[in-house]
Amino acid sequence: MSARPRQLHFNVHVSTGGNHEGAWRHPRSEPVQLTSLDYQRKVAAIAERGKLDALFFGDVPALSDNVKLRPVEQLDPVALHGALSAVTTHIGLAATISTSFNEPFNVARKIASLDLLSGGRVGWNIVTTSSENAARNYGLDGVIAHRDRYRRAEDFVEVVKKLWGSWDADAIVHDREAGLYVDTDRIHPISHEGEFFKVRGPLNVPPSPQGRPVLIQAGSSETGVAFAARHAEVVFTAQRTLEDGQRFYRELKRQVAANGRDPEHVKIVVGLSPIIGGTEAEAKKLAQELNELTVPEYGLRQLRQFSGVDLSAYPLDAPVPLDAFPDAEAVETHRSRTALVIELAKRETLTIRQLLHRLAGARGHQTFVGSTDQLADRIEEWFTSGAADGFNFMPAYLPGGLEDFVDGVIPILQRRGLFRRDYEGTTLRDHYDLPFPEAGRDRRAA
Amino acid sequence: MSARPRQLHFNVHVSTGGNHEGAWRHPRSEPVQLTSLDYQRKVAAIAERGKLDALFFGDVPALSDNVKLRPVEQLDPVALHGALSAVTTHIGLAATISTSFNEPFNVARKIASLDLLSGGRVGWNIVTTSSENAARNYGLDGVIAHRDRYRRAEDFVEVVKKLWGSWDADAIVHDREAGLYVDTDRIHPISHEGEFFKVRGPLNVPPSPQGRPVLIQAGSSETGVAFAARHAEVVFTAQRTLEDGQRFYRELKRQVAANGRDPEHVKIVVGLSPIIGGTEAEAKKLAQELNELTVPEYGLRQLRQFSGVDLSAYPLDAPVPLDAFPDAEAVETHRSRTALVIELAKRETLTIRQLLHRLAGARGHQTFVGSTDQLADRIEEWFTSGAADGFNFMPAYLPGGLEDFVDGVIPILQRRGLFRRDYEGTTLRDHYDLPFPEAGRDRRAA
Repeated sequence: MSARPRQLHFNVHVSTGGNHEGAWRHPRSEPVQLTSLDYQRKVAAIAERGKLDALFFGDVPALSDNVKLRPVEQLDPVALHGALSAVTTHIGLAATISTSFNEPFNVARKIASLDLLSGGRVGWNIVTTSSENAARNYGLDGVIAHRDRYRRAEDFVEVVKKLWGSWDADAIVHDREAGLYVDTDRIHPISHEGEFFKVRGPLNVPPSPQGRPVLIQAGSSETGVAFAARHAEVVFTAQRTLEDGQRFYRELKRQVAANGRDPEHVKIVVGLSPIIGGTEAEAKKLAQELNELTVPEYGLRQLRQFSGVDLSAYPLDAPVPLDAFPDAEAVETHRSRTALVIELAKRETLTIRQLLHRLAGARGHQTFVGSTDQLADRIEEWFTSGAADGFNFMPAYLPGGLEDFVDGVIPILQRRGLFRRDYEGTTLRDHYDLPFPEAGRDRRAA
Repeated sequence: MSARPRQLHFNVHVSTGGNHEGAWRHPRSEPVQLTSLDYQRKVAAIAERGKLDALFFGDVPALSDNVKLRPVEQLDPVALHGALSAVTTHIGLAATISTSFNEPFNVARKIASLDLLSGGRVGWNIVTTSSENAARNYGLDGVIAHRDRYRRAEDFVEVVKKLWGSWDADAIVHDREAGLYVDTDRIHPISHEGEFFKVRGPLNVPPSPQGRPVLIQAGSSETGVAFAARHAEVVFTAQRTLEDGQRFYRELKRQVAANGRDPEHVKIVVGLSPIIGGTEAEAKKLAQELNELTVPEYGLRQLRQFSGVDLSAYPLDAPVPLDAFPDAEAVETHRSRTALVIELAKRETLTIRQLLHRLAGARGHQTFVGSTDQLADRIEEWFTSGAADGFNFMPAYLPGGLEDFVDGVIPILQRRGLFRRDYEGTTLRDHYDLPFPEAGRDRRAA
């Protein structure tokens, strides 16, 4: 750990055309597809120019019903991050892979391989998959219950951590003269037998320069927070008000400490989708244009997918019918996000159309409309008042929205001493200021 | 299909240091690891200079017991091919993924994603996994029986083909003005219910410029050939004598036709591991050096893994005890390769040490020691006498062995009019001279 003052962390959350639902229709977003490597290369180059910590992509292994209304194809994350590892040199790569429809040996190997190919720049964003469309691609008839998903994830992550610890750092001898490649005493089967998985190991790839990929997690439900406190090194969360952010930050760090871990070794990263202008008025005009390009049919369907609530029979300009929403704890999919939407609708007494516009920017994440200075102030406030260690920056449109941030906001934060002027190391652990795990630690502890 | 005369096809089979067991210890192989992207980039650049059809990597999802004696780590194939898609521009990429320990939706998506990222240069090498070490990484206690592996593979491939056919070629409308991204009438759930898999689909990535990834298959057992005749567009096979090659070629093409497919749309590609010198004497000296760098312990263990036969109790310089080998049809792992080894030992009355040296170059594939002209003659003979449409070139050492082939043998074959002087298309289907599938065909046929 360095002795420098605490620094901000920024990931950029990439999705086709941008995170705003209407962005792909706006002239400021490029009419290209997420499946184009040239497009990915361009976005990555801007993010590296800004010295950001990592590129981040979400993932659902199913075609969204909303593909009619917006480009939502999703490349396989390992194929994509393999390509990105070759076209980037510094930035970290946060790959989302679900524990619900994969084998832990495969996932451990995939992420470790990406980590090697990138020279130690990879993190695994651990998710469980609640999508019914996804479940139906894997032999199931409906969604897996929230509790069952997390039980499987717990065993899954144990296996992955053990496999990543199955090679000692000095296992490779590579003695051509003697004909000895590895010292097999320094590679260890894991012989895991858990509730869901029985895996012998060891892994068939060695550790990367950062020792072990970074563990990232995003669930903010009660179960999700407990899981993060045990395993995660970086936590992505959706928090809309400073007070909520502070409460979440305090509670998670408390649980991390209660698990015997150092709270500084868990970075809390808040989703933030800003629309920036040279002036506040310019930003407001752009936000208005983007909202006018959204389609209510899309927003209503998204809302139904999150919360199970179908508001399509209500007039769009009527107030949100709060009693149509379930109790969040009864929700099996996207539990923490549903609670947040209900809270938003209650707090601000919105019409359905207004609610859809509020969600259009980033599906419930914190949004912001204003000047570059105003955004820098917001970021600094959250960072210095115990609500965030960094932000998942969700550009409303791409690549322009990322350029505006990198060229307009990052320099302000650098002048204030809050963000690095250059990369200070080569690995994702270096960027996030996280400790290097002792080789073999997880194998022995587990 | 072009009207040009029939042309040879060449893949290069890449493995760490080279395909010869002793290569990693020889000064001509670079002391680098397969996990290095720079190394992969260098090998790929040589292969593209030679205008070869594809890079090919084998895969077993387990650490080999032989890692002590040779670098045998294996990067996840999707991560690796993702990186390769970004650092190559023309050459095809043949990715091996097993049907035994994966979900068909995941594999369909992975290969289709690689195909998009590479601009249509990807093939899927369909394998079943017989490794006991692999089985133990996925909850099993021993190998899966040969017949069961193929039954699962059959259902698996059906699902993958249907998913690849689930988008019509013109499904993406991308009308920003109207807010319409795809015409959902042109994307089709597959609703597959087979013996092993129940998958709704559709896939969440669109088709690539080559319509569908190329299907490659390598099993040469009776079951394997029948499978290839139904599905494969490229067949990898190990054949050591011209007569065996011709017999295999005739039989496979016959079965392809019997399945109502055009025999010209299935390319038969024979494994070939040459050691080339400026003169025959130079080549023999190099072969001798490589053989002297092998370790009998390694060869004996490999043989046991193929055939289940343990010869470690016999003197190395005694004749191969033929009655120690089982009947090939009783073998559950590597059935066709085991038959080939038995045949080799019988035909040439070898000592155990001699047999191990014969297998050290390429694990039973055809080997060759001689000058560049002699190798060109061998290749031409097989190509023009109905034994091969091309070769899986297995460089004994890397990258030098590949350079010798590209600079020494390819020009001879070009002068003889047997191999292209430049890439004539952009996709792997172009390189292999295979037809583009009609969009949606597999969905409708299946």
